[in-house]
Amino acid sequence: MCQLLGMNCNTPTDILFSFEGFHRRGGLTDHHADGWGIAFFEGRGCRLFLDDKPSADSPVAALVRSYPIKSENVIAHIRKATVGPVGLANTHPFLREMWGQYWIFAHNGDLKDYHPAPGRYYRPVGGTDSEAAFCAIMENLRQRWDAPPPLEELWQALLEQAGAIRAHGVFNFMLSNGEWLFAHCSTHLHYIVRQAPFATAHLLDEDITVDFAEETTPDDRVAVIATQPLTDNEHWTRIDPGQALLFKDGRALFHA
Amino acid sequence: MCQLLGMNCNTPTDILFSFEGFHRRGGLTDHHADGWGIAFFEGRGCRLFLDDKPSADSPVAALVRSYPIKSENVIAHIRKATVGPVGLANTHPFLREMWGQYWIFAHNGDLKDYHPAPGRYYRPVGGTDSEAAFCAIMENLRQRWDAPPPLEELWQALLEQAGAIRAHGVFNFMLSNGEWLFAHCSTHLHYIVRQAPFATAHLLDEDITVDFAEETTPDDRVAVIATQPLTDNEHWTRIDPGQALLFKDGRALFHA
Repeated sequence: MCQLLGMNCNTPTDILFSFEGFHRRGGLTDHHADGWGIAFFEGRGCRLFLDDKPSADSPVAALVRSYPIKSENVIAHIRKATVGPVGLANTHPFLREMWGQYWIFAHNGDLKDYHPAPGRYYRPVGGTDSEAAFCAIMENLRQRWDAPPPLEELWQALLEQAGAIRAHGVFNFMLSNGEWLFAHCSTHLHYIVRQAPFATAHLLDEDITVDFAEETTPDDRVAVIATQPLTDNEHWTRIDPGQALLFKDGRALFHA
Repeated sequence: MCQLLGMNCNTPTDILFSFEGFHRRGGLTDHHADGWGIAFFEGRGCRLFLDDKPSADSPVAALVRSYPIKSENVIAHIRKATVGPVGLANTHPFLREMWGQYWIFAHNGDLKDYHPAPGRYYRPVGGTDSEAAFCAIMENLRQRWDAPPPLEELWQALLEQAGAIRAHGVFNFMLSNGEWLFAHCSTHLHYIVRQAPFATAHLLDEDITVDFAEETTPDDRVAVIATQPLTDNEHWTRIDPGQALLFKDGRALFHA
C-alpha cells in the first residue's frame, strides 16, 4: 500500500522533520519502492518533485531533505505500484490547473472497475486508477462551476465525489489548491495539529527528536496528515473510514 | 532578457553538458537571476524542477547538474523578470495537460498590450505575459480539436498562433508535448543537430570539453536549441526572426 503525507499551515513552514521519517518508508523501513513525489505550494505557485527511484535512495529526496522549502500546503506520496506500471507518468502527486489555480492530488488505495469517461477538461496522462479519479473529480467541479464557488459548496461537492468513488475500493486521498487541503479516509489516515504550547516530537522511523518550541512562533499552527503516525510521543487522531476533513490555516475547518 | 535551452533527441539523452554552461548564465556569466526551471519528459511523464533562486547558486540546479536524467525532450529557462514579480508562480517553464498529454512552454521576451480573455480550458495562475500566451495557444488548439490532430495541421496552427502573438512584441519560445519540440524565434534563437560522426564540443561559459563520440552510439541524433550558442567550436545555426522549427527525433522535421 502506498503512503501519504500532507501538511497544512497558517504560516509557511518546512516539512523537513516529517519528511525525514516519511521518506524512509520508501524502501527502508517499509515496502513502497516504486517511486515517490512531493508537491509544495508557495503562494500561487507550486513545485512538484517526482522520482521513479525509491525515496530512500533518491537523489531528489536527498535534495528535499536538505532544502528547507517553506510552504503552507504540501502533499507527498510514496508509491507501491498496484495499478499501472512504474514510471514517471504514474508517479503521484498529480498536478492540474483549474480556475487559474494549481491543484495537487495523491491517492493511496485501489479502485476496482473504475473507468470514468474521458473528460472535456481533464484527462489522465498515465495509466493509474488514481489519476483517473483525480481527473474525474476535477471534471465534475469544472463542469459545475466556471469560477471558484464558496468554500462550503466546494466542500460538499468534494464529499459527494469522494463518496461516489469510494464505492469502487480503497480511496484514501489528499487534494489541495494551495489554499486548503482536503483529506479523505477510506481505510487509514491520521492527523495531528501542532500549536502553542509546542513540545518536542520524536520520529517513529528514526531516532530523531525536534523541539518545535525552538522552531516556531506562538501563533504558528501546523496540521500534519499521514497514512500512519510519524511520531511516537504525540497523540495522532485517527480519521475514521468514510470521514473527510478540510484543513485551512492549520486547523480542521470542516469535518464530516 | 531571459535565456532558453531546449533539447530534442531520438533516444533518451542527458543534458548535463549543455546545462553546465547554461545554468551559469543565471547570475554568474550573465544577468538572469530571477529564478529558473527545467522540464524533462520521460515517456509520457514529465518532471519540472523550478526554483526562484538564481540558477548559479540554486540547490535544485546542483541536483540537476549531478543527476543524469535521460529524456527525449527538455526545455529550460532562466528568468530575468520583466512582467510579473519574482516568484514560483511566474517561473518558467509552465505545464498544462491537453488531450491526455503534458505540454511544457517557456518564453523569452516581452509582450505589450497583450491581455487575452480567460480561456474555457486554460487560465494563467501567475501574472506573466508568458503564461498568458501559453494558455492562449493551448486554448486555441483545444477549442479547435478534441483530440490530437495530424502533426502537420498542428504545426500550421502553431505557426498561426506564434505569428499572431509575435505582433505584441518579442516572442521567442519553445513548446513540447513530449513527442516533438516547437521552437519559435522572434529575435534570438540558435540550434545545432549533433549526429554521427560525433566530435568534441567545448563550452563557451566554462572551460569544459566533452567528446560526444564516447557518450553516444552511431544512431543517436540530438538537437539542442538555445538563445545563444553554448559551445565555441561548433557551428550553430541562427534561426531568423519570424522563423520556427518543429524538432522530432533529433531533426528539424518542419521549418517555416
